[in-house]
Amino acid sequence: MKVAIIMGSDSDWPRLEGAAKVLKSFGVECEVIVASAHRTPDVVHEFAAGAAERGVKVIIAAAGAAAHLPGVIASFTTLPVIGVPIAATPLAGFDALLSIVQMPSGIPVATMAVDGAKNAAIFAVQILAVGNENLAAKLKEYRKQMAEEVAAKADKVTKIWNEEAAKA
Amino acid sequence: MKVAIIMGSDSDWPRLEGAAKVLKSFGVECEVIVASAHRTPDVVHEFAAGAAERGVKVIIAAAGAAAHLPGVIASFTTLPVIGVPIAATPLAGFDALLSIVQMPSGIPVATMAVDGAKNAAIFAVQILAVGNENLAAKLKEYRKQMAEEVAAKADKVTKIWNEEAAKA
Amino acid sequence: MKVAIIMGSDSDWPRLEGAAKVLKSFGVECEVIVASAHRTPDVVHEFAAGAAERGVKVIIAAAGAAAHLPGVIASFTTLPVIGVPIAATPLAGFDALLSIVQMPSGIPVATMAVDGAKNAAIFAVQILAVGNENLAAKLKEYRKQMAEEVAAKADKVTKIWNEEAAKA
Amino acid sequence: MKVAIIMGSDSDWPRLEGAAKVLKSFGVECEVIVASAHRTPDVVHEFAAGAAERGVKVIIAAAGAAAHLPGVIASFTTLPVIGVPIAATPLAGFDALLSIVQMPSGIPVATMAVDGAKNAAIFAVQILAVGNENLAAKLKEYRKQMAEEVAAKADKVTKIWNEEAAKA
Amino acid sequence: MKVAIIMGSDSDWPRLEGAAKVLKSFGVECEVIVASAHRTPDVVHEFAAGAAERGVKVIIAAAGAAAHLPGVIASFTTLPVIGVPIAATPLAGFDALLSIVQMPSGIPVATMAVDGAKNAAIFAVQILAVGNENLAAKLKEYRKQMAEEVAAKADKVTKIWNEEAAKA
Amino acid sequence: MKVAIIMGSDSDWPRLEGAAKVLKSFGVECEVIVASAHRTPDVVHEFAAGAAERGVKVIIAAAGAAAHLPGVIASFTTLPVIGVPIAATPLAGFDALLSIVQMPSGIPVATMAVDGAKNAAIFAVQILAVGNENLAAKLKEYRKQMAEEVAAKADKVTKIWNEEAAKA
Amino acid sequence: MKVAIIMGSDSDWPRLEGAAKVLKSFGVECEVIVASAHRTPDVVHEFAAGAAERGVKVIIAAAGAAAHLPGVIASFTTLPVIGVPIAATPLAGFDALLSIVQMPSGIPVATMAVDGAKNAAIFAVQILAVGNENLAAKLKEYRKQMAEEVAAKADKVTKIWNEEAAKA
Amino acid sequence: MKVAIIMGSDSDWPRLEGAAKVLKSFGVECEVIVASAHRTPDVVHEFAAGAAERGVKVIIAAAGAAAHLPGVIASFTTLPVIGVPIAATPLAGFDALLSIVQMPSGIPVATMAVDGAKNAAIFAVQILAVGNENLAAKLKEYRKQMAEEVAAKADKVTKIWNEEAAKA
Repeated sequence: MKVAIIMGSDSDWPRLEGAAKVLKSFGVECEVIVASAHRTPDVVHEFAAGAAERGVKVIIAAAGAAAHLPGVIASFTTLPVIGVPIAATPLAGFDALLSIVQMPSGIPVATMAVDGAKNAAIFAVQILAVGNENLAAKLKEYRKQMAEEVAAKADKVTKIWNEEAAKA
Repeated sequence: MKVAIIMGSDSDWPRLEGAAKVLKSFGVECEVIVASAHRTPDVVHEFAAGAAERGVKVIIAAAGAAAHLPGVIASFTTLPVIGVPIAATPLAGFDALLSIVQMPSGIPVATMAVDGAKNAAIFAVQILAVGNENLAAKLKEYRKQMAEEVAAKADKVTKIWNEEAAKA
Repeated sequence: MKVAIIMGSDSDWPRLEGAAKVLKSFGVECEVIVASAHRTPDVVHEFAAGAAERGVKVIIAAAGAAAHLPGVIASFTTLPVIGVPIAATPLAGFDALLSIVQMPSGIPVATMAVDGAKNAAIFAVQILAVGNENLAAKLKEYRKQMAEEVAAKADKVTKIWNEEAAKA
Repeated sequence: MKVAIIMGSDSDWPRLEGAAKVLKSFGVECEVIVASAHRTPDVVHEFAAGAAERGVKVIIAAAGAAAHLPGVIASFTTLPVIGVPIAATPLAGFDALLSIVQMPSGIPVATMAVDGAKNAAIFAVQILAVGNENLAAKLKEYRKQMAEEVAAKADKVTKIWNEEAAKA
Repeated sequence: MKVAIIMGSDSDWPRLEGAAKVLKSFGVECEVIVASAHRTPDVVHEFAAGAAERGVKVIIAAAGAAAHLPGVIASFTTLPVIGVPIAATPLAGFDALLSIVQMPSGIPVATMAVDGAKNAAIFAVQILAVGNENLAAKLKEYRKQMAEEVAAKADKVTKIWNEEAAKA
Repeated sequence: MKVAIIMGSDSDWPRLEGAAKVLKSFGVECEVIVASAHRTPDVVHEFAAGAAERGVKVIIAAAGAAAHLPGVIASFTTLPVIGVPIAATPLAGFDALLSIVQMPSGIPVATMAVDGAKNAAIFAVQILAVGNENLAAKLKEYRKQMAEEVAAKADKVTKIWNEEAAKA
Repeated sequence: MKVAIIMGSDSDWPRLEGAAKVLKSFGVECEVIVASAHRTPDVVHEFAAGAAERGVKVIIAAAGAAAHLPGVIASFTTLPVIGVPIAATPLAGFDALLSIVQMPSGIPVATMAVDGAKNAAIFAVQILAVGNENLAAKLKEYRKQMAEEVAAKADKVTKIWNEEAAKA
Repeated sequence: MKVAIIMGSDSDWPRLEGAAKVLKSFGVECEVIVASAHRTPDVVHEFAAGAAERGVKVIIAAAGAAAHLPGVIASFTTLPVIGVPIAATPLAGFDALLSIVQMPSGIPVATMAVDGAKNAAIFAVQILAVGNENLAAKLKEYRKQMAEEVAAKADKVTKIWNEEAAKA
């Protein structure tokens, strides 16, 4: 039950690290790879074609600019590929978003928000949870905690305003 | 092993029908629902909250304009939700795409291309195939057939040109 | 005669605080809530469905990214909902703007400029002033003051230039 | 309890007519005016400045291209102004949307979706309903009917698919 | 032979100052005004309607966001109006550009680049030069100087590279 | 007192013809030229460099796609150049608009709306009217007629609605 | 001295045929292939990796949507790759353009206009002409003919207008 | 075997310097020029028209805003012109990209990514390598080194994660 995180450049790692930690927190093993669809296409090919055999169940692929990495990987495997557009150019992520999401009929890439790596990890867990009740339960727990955190922060803001409003 | 397809308006059905047929061709049961995140929110809530219990494993949600349906469903379930932006306004699908893909941290929606409903069905099968070797084998077969179809069409174009090129 | 301000994240508060203060300056009571359409949907539902009974007359909802909050609230109440898109992602508010303004037929959200929370407060007062001559008078006064402030600043700029222009 | 609908060009009328009919169906009186912010600015000025005295409570202003009409009207009255961007140029409504929604601090325009005139009428009713329980009740009834219509259409689609799915 | 520069907000002055100085350098008198199309519409009306009588020949109007100022002025005068979109919101000037340039048939605004105030001044001089040979000659001289400045800078870059290229 | 209209392709003529007729209706002589900034650069150069000597006072240049024509002409003359972006590609005029309006400091092009050729003609007349009281008077008359036409059409729409509204 | 034209789908052929004919008209041999970066990646790989050996000197690759084909080919060869974005989705070619042009550092794709296949052929000839004086001479001749065609069409438009202008 | 790099402004040099160095590293002579399509059109004309005779084989032209420089050069020569859009305005390079890439039929410009000057240099080498086996071999070596650098960086990231993952 392993998830692979692959990114097009080592400079993407700070934006992907959180995703790897989310997977770890769910007890999901995670392999982390840097490989470029264009500069090291053979590494990408080998990675993608061999992923299923290595026990990888879901692939998270992040890239910026003409972000071909997720689509290229999807062309070499039938494992679910989750794409994360990275805002890495003056075009603010519009380039990466459209390059990843607009996949042609037949080869889908499940696209997340620009710089939305953490959600990619959660979605990978959701996929694994389809056949794993333990993970499904953890996801529900995760949601609950998230709601509680929002509620705690929410109370602070409400309190700040109530004090402000009470002033003459 | 059921997939649900939900769409925001009955006018979206012609763009979703192909997705339902893909699922059927893979032998995956498919329930089809029309419900609006804004006009029938309670129906959506009930649908989403009860989906897991009804045996739904993956949800495909399609919507146009301010396409909140996939995100709203995702907020009520931890099942994987696949979002399909529909080009339904003068803004050509940019509105639906951004409304679906830019989900906040914690609640992912796996976004497909604008009007990319067929890919949503394939991705749903890919998710189910993570725990189902039979489906995984069918996906590989599907890929092979797709490649053969492309090759057949490719040969036609090459032949047309070769005849044209041979002319004086 | 109460207005509710709800925002999707506590990090939005600095951009909403001015709105709350505008309401206060008009003598309009204001409740401030943080709740996420996706992370705490039940809180949002409860908030929206009960707003009218709590005496809320107008709801201001602010959110960034796939900004579903205003639309989701509008689906649970027939009170006027004013939406404020927040520029919170690399896509510079285009995502939130389209997610809020492109509401489908039947469920309107009155959309303000990106990061235009202060105008949301003024518009809420304008709504309340439809049935309240006191508020209507205050709005006219507010306009007058605003014009005077612009005029004062305007004079400064004109003076600066006139001095510059008079130089040899 | 009157609503004014003003549009920048007589060619906009087919897209506004539905809004006028919605108002009529709610028993709200509606005056319909064509006037151009740029070609007949004095008519617009007179219309806006005198609206409150004529008993107008809410103004719906629709325009395409550099759609200044709603903002110009808002500058002459403190009545709530609802803006409807019309898709009337090759730029597909992006121009009208940004021209209407990005109003500066102090002078809000409540912006609807591109070509979203019907929602402008509903929002006008929602404003009037703040001080009118009869209208508030009608709005709830309207929502209920809308939900029933969606449900009826929804059933048809579900039935179509179920028959299709049942085929061998 | 006077040019008026009007801007929507005193905060625009630093971006307009250069334009006023260009006019001065050409010996063209320049009046500088701050007035808001929305917050002080009467000031704008008075300014525009009386401009021709005050001896103004060309009007430069700069504004950001829903930049109605140039169009509103154009509606009150047949003097040439030059519009300068200011990048003043998260939407990076796209809003102001479209709000200014997409004027409806009949009422043109001559639009400059985003933040292109200096060019507005030069264009104003070009307009005045149509009937003024002295100014026309100055414009040619200005062009020549500009070309010389570019050439001087150009030589520096070429020299820097030639030294770099000569290194082993 | 001559205006030149130049366009990048003969296929643009149907969109420019109206502009030529407006000029004629004002009694302004008009020369019409087709020349491509890229395919016949020497023709463009010769046209632009000699325009002033031929008695041309204002140049209207229209082009689509990478619409360099107005800017290229502006680089060869100090006459006022008015640019008209033509919507001629799948990018709907965004390409031509940005290619024309975003001119660098020093060489302005007065940009009109996408496909806004008629306004270019009016603006050319406005420039000529700076030194020509006869034309200035005609422009005021033109505005008046335009306002009357709008008013006539406006009355029709108001009447249509009033009849509709009077129905039970 | 062979150029290869590869396209992602047989449906692109009508937009590519003109390019093949341009090459033929220059006496440049041209192979035409249909292969999908995602549906037949191995065909693409084999095509690209073997192109140089087959005598191909330049590759023209056209694709729509998430148009990865040109970039993927460029990753397998150091031959010059010319990319042609095809407008094939509701997003009007913005998706294909950004997917092709925004290539990362190290692996360039020479991008043409949306649907600009003919220019790809001309550019391929320009590349070949760097080392081939015969082709260089043909290109100059081609330019001359193009200019003459523009001039012929230009004369027609000028004549049409002159007749129109001469009318009373 | 010379490549020319021309840029519209000396302020572009820091973004172009890397391109010149890439050419030098391949042993390709490189001339560097600053000239503005609009401010020094004659310099540009002379540069472009004489380039082939000076032994220039490929031209790299970079510009921001209404980036006409590459297209203008392409209109004066049949040498291959590579265009580099520079992000130099609030519109983030969208203006320069569309101004460069959307060239009309007949006069291609090979467009690189926004700020993608380095790739322009590599593409110039790829063009020269069509007729130069030595350069072709160097390009393959360059690719190999690039792949090795990516691999080295990749290993670091993998190692960082593996250590993190191994923590309790």
